[in-house]
Amino acid sequence: MKKINTAPISGTQELLPADQFVFDQLKTNIMKTYASYGFQHIETPVIDRTEILLAKAGGETEKQIYKVVKTQETTDSATQALRFDHTVPLARYLAEYQSQLNFPFKVTQIGRNFRGERAQKGRFREFYQCDIDIIGRNELPVTYDAEVIRTLLAALDSFNLPALTVRISNRKLLTGLLTAFGLASLSDQIFSIIDHIDKVDPVVTHQQLEKLGLGSSNIKLLERFLSARGNFDTVQKQLLDLNISHHLFISGLFELETVSKLLSAQGLTNFIIDPSIIRGLDYYTGTVFETFINDYPSLGSICSGGRYDNLISQYSTQNFPGVGGSIGLTRLFYVLNQHNLVKKQTNPLDYVIIPLSPDQTLPALQLADQLRRSGSTVDTLLNFKKLGDQLKFAAKIANHAVVLGPDEVQAKVATAKNLLTGEQTTITL
Amino acid sequence: MKKINTAPISGTQELLPADQFVFDQLKTNIMKTYASYGFQHIETPVIDRTEILLAKAGGETEKQIYKVVKTQETTDSATQALRFDHTVPLARYLAEYQSQLNFPFKVTQIGRNFRGERAQKGRFREFYQCDIDIIGRNELPVTYDAEVIRTLLAALDSFNLPALTVRISNRKLLTGLLTAFGLASLSDQIFSIIDHIDKVDPVVTHQQLEKLGLGSSNIKLLERFLSARGNFDTVQKQLLDLNISHHLFISGLFELETVSKLLSAQGLTNFIIDPSIIRGLDYYTGTVFETFINDYPSLGSICSGGRYDNLISQYSTQNFPGVGGSIGLTRLFYVLNQHNLVKKQTNPLDYVIIPLSPDQTLPALQLADQLRRSGSTVDTLLNFKKLGDQLKFAAKIANHAVVLGPDEVQAKVATAKNLLTGEQTTITL
Repeated sequence: MKKINTAPISGTQELLPADQFVFDQLKTNIMKTYASYGFQHIETPVIDRTEILLAKAGGETEKQIYKVVKTQETTDSATQALRFDHTVPLARYLAEYQSQLNFPFKVTQIGRNFRGERAQKGRFREFYQCDIDIIGRNELPVTYDAEVIRTLLAALDSFNLPALTVRISNRKLLTGLLTAFGLASLSDQIFSIIDHIDKVDPVVTHQQLEKLGLGSSNIKLLERFLSARGNFDTVQKQLLDLNISHHLFISGLFELETVSKLLSAQGLTNFIIDPSIIRGLDYYTGTVFETFINDYPSLGSICSGGRYDNLISQYSTQNFPGVGGSIGLTRLFYVLNQHNLVKKQTNPLDYVIIPLSPDQTLPALQLADQLRRSGSTVDTLLNFKKLGDQLKFAAKIANHAVVLGPDEVQAKVATAKNLLTGEQTTITL
Repeated sequence: MKKINTAPISGTQELLPADQFVFDQLKTNIMKTYASYGFQHIETPVIDRTEILLAKAGGETEKQIYKVVKTQETTDSATQALRFDHTVPLARYLAEYQSQLNFPFKVTQIGRNFRGERAQKGRFREFYQCDIDIIGRNELPVTYDAEVIRTLLAALDSFNLPALTVRISNRKLLTGLLTAFGLASLSDQIFSIIDHIDKVDPVVTHQQLEKLGLGSSNIKLLERFLSARGNFDTVQKQLLDLNISHHLFISGLFELETVSKLLSAQGLTNFIIDPSIIRGLDYYTGTVFETFINDYPSLGSICSGGRYDNLISQYSTQNFPGVGGSIGLTRLFYVLNQHNLVKKQTNPLDYVIIPLSPDQTLPALQLADQLRRSGSTVDTLLNFKKLGDQLKFAAKIANHAVVLGPDEVQAKVATAKNLLTGEQTTITL
């Protein structure tokens, strides 16, 4: 027999049933939370037009796109590819169905996306993202930015994670500051330097900014801007001290205040204002945020997003401002497991029923039905091995075992044994 | 602005939120039913090794496989492709993790598969399949075949479909019959002719069999075999009248009896024995079944499967007999909609809360939280348009609207209006 490699390809997630059960619970919690906050679910196809996917991509992303071709076709003719995020298909969806949708459109997409990244630990080529977005037609109050952050935090709450902090900023601050300094033409380069600030020595960052031609007083002011930190009132004071009066800067401060006050008013305390938060992607125009587990900053942001006012302009003459965010579930699950932060609490099934002989087949199946009617998940063993083996099997996949012999069937009473605690309960058949 | 085609590519399913909500309900019902019958969920990657996917494919399927290449690669070097079903990745999964799994392994996979079919109505290139399989190690009693059929029927029950019938046969019957006739060498061709028997004039079928060299007495006997129909006792009588004593034929009859008796004993009446059921795929070795809606036979089988005793032999030296079946959800949803057989019962959300002015923002968000705690899905409108517009919006996406003005906030009492019935309920804030 030819030996075939049966491992999944690298960069994909493939779990044993018990781990999949935990992963599914997290996914279900996210879906339920998003729905409870009024987000409606849609699914866009995994395969989309290359021209749509490439329209917004460019640079690194373009190189990572997987094209899809039938066996006989060549790559050159590839008009289809795998989506690399949910945002681009959402923009297409909005352009296509705008007249049939109701705005503000609160929408969630939960599914797998694909990127041909270099394979390395914790980097996935096929991964779940759990997105929410709120899209307005022509207008969308900034209060919705707070709604997105609040919904994402509620979803993360369901994970029982260690304490985490959302770091919030607004792109208009930095854009206003750079414009006021006459540095607007360098803003792409400066945004990119700041986006990597956490991973680079401050001395190097300083040198990079000098290389761009920034004078030392400008760099000093920029560094004061970037190191402002705290609740809104604290950061506002620090930023007003910079004496920047550009209208974008002021408007960024006002938006931050609205978001911040609304989150506080709802009792949220685990967020700070952090002007060094930028988000790499071009399309953000206002609020931006990232989320870190306090004791594990090296895990990076586990949930991020922001405001984009022009995303759909490419496909539509109408204006659809939006705000959104995403939990990268596959990566999050991976890093939580690495740090033992996900706890397996139960086995996948509630019950395994073990008939002792074929004579108890039907009563066993009937008992399974009875337990199902009260919402339980139940397996019935029909292979009649030794009782010890059957109980060992049950302990691996279920929380309770019920053994059914002739005595139980005659008495119409069976005993369910809790396989985790040993506790016994009586069931009337 | 360049005009870009924003439609999804043909052969994919993309739904508006209200339709997606109905689709999701059906999917959830299937998942819950499968879980309640003890099937554990796994997910295999969408992208898999070409050598794995092609190992079992061949013929039509091979031409329909989508290869996956990064932008710079050529098709020739494609070592990865999109899975076209759940069965082949399951075989790889079993070979890879056999030592960590517990057998009999009851497993479900629910996800999208991909086939580059010619685009036509009701044919999908990207489609959901909802599979269950039970895999034994070295042995798997035929009673498990009945468990698969019963689980699938329970899942379909949750759809509120019109009456349906499962047609069950066993491949050993026809294999035994052909071997007894000395026609074993022609069995591939004969299976293929019989697989298309429903779509072809009986005269043509007769001619095709003659062309293969079958004598008229053999054809007559084969036709008697294929036209046997009814409950097990009826069909058993008809088949025993054919006087075929080949051991496979007899063993096929015994297996059918076991499956049939176990289904009847559990109160199921909507199945018949139908020896003309073959299932196209090579890998079935015993029980095979298809399911038809009685009044819509032209929809074809909506749920089918069978027994495969050698599927994994390619990847493993151990023997893993299995039995499984699948509901093709995307296609089923499409044809049910075509015939108005899916009813939209509610709107996607339970509540839309409408604060009259920004002063009611916080009370509105607090009321939303209150309703969420009792499990409701709630949107809060923060865009302060005219009340008439807000109520129109609410009626499109939700079942209830709650208007919150200064009076309601002061009195701590609001009224929820059922937007479908007009009924009003009082809510204490």
